[in-house]
Amino acid sequence: MTYFTEAQAVKGKQSLMFENGPYIVSAASVTGSKEAEGPLGKLFDMTNEDDLFGAQTWEEAESTMQKEACVLALGKAHVKADEVRYLFGGDLLRQGIATSMGVEALQIPMFGLYGACSTSGEALALAGMSAAAGYGKYMLAVTSSHFGSAEKEFRFPLGYANQRPLSAHWTVTGSGAFVVRAAEAKMSGGRDISESAETPGRTDVSGSPEADEDVYRGSHVRIAGVTVGKIVDYGLKDSQNMGACMAPAAMDTIVQNFEDTGRSAEDYDHIITGDLGYVGQSILFDLVRGKGHDIRKKHLDCGMLIYDKEKQDTHAGGSGCGCAAVTLASFILPKLEKGEWERVLFVPTGALLSTVSFNEGASVPGIAHGIVLEHVPG
Amino acid sequence: MTYFTEAQAVKGKQSLMFENGPYIVSAASVTGSKEAEGPLGKLFDMTNEDDLFGAQTWEEAESTMQKEACVLALGKAHVKADEVRYLFGGDLLRQGIATSMGVEALQIPMFGLYGACSTSGEALALAGMSAAAGYGKYMLAVTSSHFGSAEKEFRFPLGYANQRPLSAHWTVTGSGAFVVRAAEAKMSGGRDISESAETPGRTDVSGSPEADEDVYRGSHVRIAGVTVGKIVDYGLKDSQNMGACMAPAAMDTIVQNFEDTGRSAEDYDHIITGDLGYVGQSILFDLVRGKGHDIRKKHLDCGMLIYDKEKQDTHAGGSGCGCAAVTLASFILPKLEKGEWERVLFVPTGALLSTVSFNEGASVPGIAHGIVLEHVPG
Repeated sequence: MTYFTEAQAVKGKQSLMFENGPYIVSAASVTGSKEAEGPLGKLFDMTNEDDLFGAQTWEEAESTMQKEACVLALGKAHVKADEVRYLFGGDLLRQGIATSMGVEALQIPMFGLYGACSTSGEALALAGMSAAAGYGKYMLAVTSSHFGSAEKEFRFPLGYANQRPLSAHWTVTGSGAFVVRAAEAKMSGGRDISESAETPGRTDVSGSPEADEDVYRGSHVRIAGVTVGKIVDYGLKDSQNMGACMAPAAMDTIVQNFEDTGRSAEDYDHIITGDLGYVGQSILFDLVRGKGHDIRKKHLDCGMLIYDKEKQDTHAGGSGCGCAAVTLASFILPKLEKGEWERVLFVPTGALLSTVSFNEGASVPGIAHGIVLEHVPG
Repeated sequence: MTYFTEAQAVKGKQSLMFENGPYIVSAASVTGSKEAEGPLGKLFDMTNEDDLFGAQTWEEAESTMQKEACVLALGKAHVKADEVRYLFGGDLLRQGIATSMGVEALQIPMFGLYGACSTSGEALALAGMSAAAGYGKYMLAVTSSHFGSAEKEFRFPLGYANQRPLSAHWTVTGSGAFVVRAAEAKMSGGRDISESAETPGRTDVSGSPEADEDVYRGSHVRIAGVTVGKIVDYGLKDSQNMGACMAPAAMDTIVQNFEDTGRSAEDYDHIITGDLGYVGQSILFDLVRGKGHDIRKKHLDCGMLIYDKEKQDTHAGGSGCGCAAVTLASFILPKLEKGEWERVLFVPTGALLSTVSFNEGASVPGIAHGIVLEHVPG
């Protein structure tokens, strides 16, 4: 007798493809000054001139960015904090302190995450999984990084003015937040987005249904599925060349997504990694080709999109939990919303190291989580 | 029109109570020497005399404990690593490095977590939620802490032989791992555990059904529900008195569980916090009484259970991600398995601080996640 049945979402070894995937109903991006001067600068919701956001320390500034990103995303969706069932968030700092201090004021039950620069993928995966399972109507995913706090955490305080090799990344000062809404449970067909979606049996919903009518119709972007990454270690030890450290993980997740879903690069408008940068990209192309796929025409990288290679001295490109998050919020989601792109594989990539592991001579393995984002017409 | 329906699991503000909750089909505990000498010493699956587990550094030792705990738990359940859909793990170290290095060899798609000493609750909550949603048959939850690595991370290297105040905790050297199995989807009644549960549509299951017959019948402990915690900050700043910092969060989650489920202390055989210790316990009792509940007769604390107060000089009690995890694996689950206890509210508690946040004068907020564990007869 076989009693156990997995969700119809379960595909292949590592992926879930939701039958009725949740929507990203709003997103917000908050960044620092260097990002504001970059190619995506005009697309960000909020930027700050001195990168301190009114705070006294880099850590506090990062927390402020997270809170502002969450408040902005909630405001755009006209969702109150107490309507959000669970928050999934993380950052690069030790003990995830930017997140703890950042989201504390929202008082949303929360799961703290750590996946290095892949955390935005991890947070969206878990928010999507929870919403698709019906564990609540709204979930919130948020991640951040800050150049000042990251240099202090991983390298040297900014005042040291240390030299950086050309393979090094520039940590993005930024935070991206995303409100994920469960799709309605039972629709016989046609238009998928409910115009007035009340939550039965909830005690914490304070918004009026009338107000909902105006705001819930906006989104046409759905989390169609996820490919959860595993740790991939090619033995590299150079923490100043994180693109090389993360490229194998990106390859692994992208190829696994193809295998699990029966798709190839042709099925995506774009495959967008988090922060491989210029060095990592060329390695990724080689590794993926070794597996019999060619993604060169489809590939974009948030770390390459966010800064101007010629004018901004950022070496290999941008990185950090905030890099993929603000690029998704400001650049990728609007293209999907408008239908310019119909399906994207978003693959934030993380390098799993700490100063202690580096000093003890450990290698720097990578991890990458794939999020399948689709435009829903209507 | 109301299309959206939440899962029937959704209860109140923060809780999920699964209709068909997943089972904890095995658990393993690996600890150091001090824990081996304590009251629970004989119950642990593996202990080590020099706390290094054959490694060269405390961090590597902690990773080794995690790996051993995972391998032991998988072995007990006769489940292969590639049968596990997703792993949820975390530890106390910066950038969760003990987990990254510890579980790497298992090659299970993984979610890295950080919830300080509440992480075992966070991992079990997410593993339970994922299994209950049908996202895979097996999930693995693992957490660890190590006295040596934690002192180095948060306080001073052991060689400094620094003095500790009486309110300080002793970080447990230990790791606990838990294999969570989804309940079968459709049973009309009677015995809930399938004897031969094959996984349809999976490509990565290599065990034979015949072997399954022998091993899947063991468990009588179910994750009946979860109460996801929020960050609770009473403004305390003393990182050497973490019991006081975490007690408000424990109160908040316990009282929320009562509110969400309509239960009281009488409905649980025990309410077991993670590592409040002697100081935190008395504060918890006061705070809970202030909310109109009395849990004094039902309360246990893993940090108080794991060491001998008279003979082992551990001041306020044990703490760390490993404390609640190994106590659950070695002491609590067997009582539930045998039916000595029928329902327990397991509430690992975490103090959200880093050396940076402490040095910058930030407060130490707490978080606690509640896991409802039930004995299933049959």
